[in-house]
Amino acid sequence: MSEKIGFIGLGRMGLPMSYNLLRAGYDLTVHNRSQEKVRQIADAGAIAASSTAEVMERCDIVLACLPDVETCEAVLLGDDGALPNARPGQIIVDHSTVGASTSKACAAAAEERGAMFLDAPISGGTERATDGTLTIMVGGPDEAYARVQPAFDVMGAVVRHVGPTGSGTAAKLVNQLLVGVHKVAAAEAMLLAAKSGADPALVFELVNSGWGQSFILGRNAPAMLDRDFEGIRTQVRVFLKDLGLIQEMARDLETPIPGGDLAYRLFSEAVEQGLGDMDGAAIVLPMEEEAGFQIRRK
Amino acid sequence: MSEKIGFIGLGRMGLPMSYNLLRAGYDLTVHNRSQEKVRQIADAGAIAASSTAEVMERCDIVLACLPDVETCEAVLLGDDGALPNARPGQIIVDHSTVGASTSKACAAAAEERGAMFLDAPISGGTERATDGTLTIMVGGPDEAYARVQPAFDVMGAVVRHVGPTGSGTAAKLVNQLLVGVHKVAAAEAMLLAAKSGADPALVFELVNSGWGQSFILGRNAPAMLDRDFEGIRTQVRVFLKDLGLIQEMARDLETPIPGGDLAYRLFSEAVEQGLGDMDGAAIVLPMEEEAGFQIRRK
Repeated sequence: MSEKIGFIGLGRMGLPMSYNLLRAGYDLTVHNRSQEKVRQIADAGAIAASSTAEVMERCDIVLACLPDVETCEAVLLGDDGALPNARPGQIIVDHSTVGASTSKACAAAAEERGAMFLDAPISGGTERATDGTLTIMVGGPDEAYARVQPAFDVMGAVVRHVGPTGSGTAAKLVNQLLVGVHKVAAAEAMLLAAKSGADPALVFELVNSGWGQSFILGRNAPAMLDRDFEGIRTQVRVFLKDLGLIQEMARDLETPIPGGDLAYRLFSEAVEQGLGDMDGAAIVLPMEEEAGFQIRRK
Repeated sequence: MSEKIGFIGLGRMGLPMSYNLLRAGYDLTVHNRSQEKVRQIADAGAIAASSTAEVMERCDIVLACLPDVETCEAVLLGDDGALPNARPGQIIVDHSTVGASTSKACAAAAEERGAMFLDAPISGGTERATDGTLTIMVGGPDEAYARVQPAFDVMGAVVRHVGPTGSGTAAKLVNQLLVGVHKVAAAEAMLLAAKSGADPALVFELVNSGWGQSFILGRNAPAMLDRDFEGIRTQVRVFLKDLGLIQEMARDLETPIPGGDLAYRLFSEAVEQGLGDMDGAAIVLPMEEEAGFQIRRK
């Protein structure tokens, strides 16, 4: 535990991740825009820093977990941000979901200062962040990965170094691509089942025990059956943001993603129709309107 | 075991299903176009009938498992077929994957003769047919379901009566809709991962342990990584046939299935490009050609 760790961004994911590092015995310095969460974890033993620059000064490894590309670029690449204040040998790790271009710009900025950068997006939600069982997908240099791996293992259960800079970000976007297309599939499948006159709850049980099974169907079909579109899981507009990053990635890589294009279009339309704050399962609502029929538990 | 059972169609699924009925002690009469399989199961104790009409004469409950809509309609609805030869109280069960219109025509023909009809498509492949652990999705009258349920339980592990006539067929097509869209998602996700520079096998491991997971991704991603498109699982052209039935169903029900439409288009194009005899995972090949890049295990 010789490495001093810094954590920037104590949100829904960052706060439980920080607690796990603290419990594992790390010397932890934290920074967050809102001070309430800083005080909370400082009471538990973390050192509160008043700026990103202060975190950079105190720590060997600095992790960031930020809500969107804009915040991420401001905190990591801005004049007072992490990377322009990096020093040789220091490692900066980004757990945010961003595009490959952001990850590559961060890696370039780190290299300029003799520091190292890892893109390390996470998956699994607040529950798995709390349990320290996240999926962590890491891209970047071997040397940096080897040094941060013990900390990753404290926060995650499935931790993989998938390739060079940008690979972690790519893996996360590929995950979101699957999630997006599976959400569309779950919505139209449940609607077709219900409108056919079959019991949609029984059809769900059958197909989810068979070849039609997916993690997303298991989460979203019950929400559709119970008309539960307000529970905060992943909002339509947050999800659309990820689908936009996937569009950018596929364009840059000149790779066709017909399912991803479809999901992007449907989620865009859902936001235009005012469904942006609802859970992603609400992607079924415009389809139901078109069919003139609602899925319901019998 | 007072009910005498008939089985028409001793194919890849029908033969192991028949063996399970025989082993459970049923008085079983079988009929099949090719005589080799008839002799095989007759040696094990089944009674060989020389025509569908003879099966109808000998049995109380007659099950059919046929490869396509044309064969199914000929055997069940044709002049010498099962339903025009049905008698009051007799039950005819169709395990084939057909469209709702075929199931409804069968039910009407049964009713005309005072008989009963169940549409009862199956899922799970030859392995689960052999183990007697199929998923069986049943539509039709309660009285008929109650009488056939003991036989279903011999052949299947997940057996559900999902609603009136056509509901079993609907459930099966909903399953195939999910499978089709998930195949498209798996293909484009694996291609995007590989072309990004990440290790596609590691990305597969990560996303399939996370929210991107699906049964189909678990089956198809390894085939793509190992370039195994010739193994006989489900051929592209067989799958396209199901996607065509789903198109018909969605049109009849006036229900949008944007993902299903996309899968139908991509599988049609794949057949046009000569990939019809390959396994469904080959849906990735036209995408790879467009991207100028092949997925490979590193």
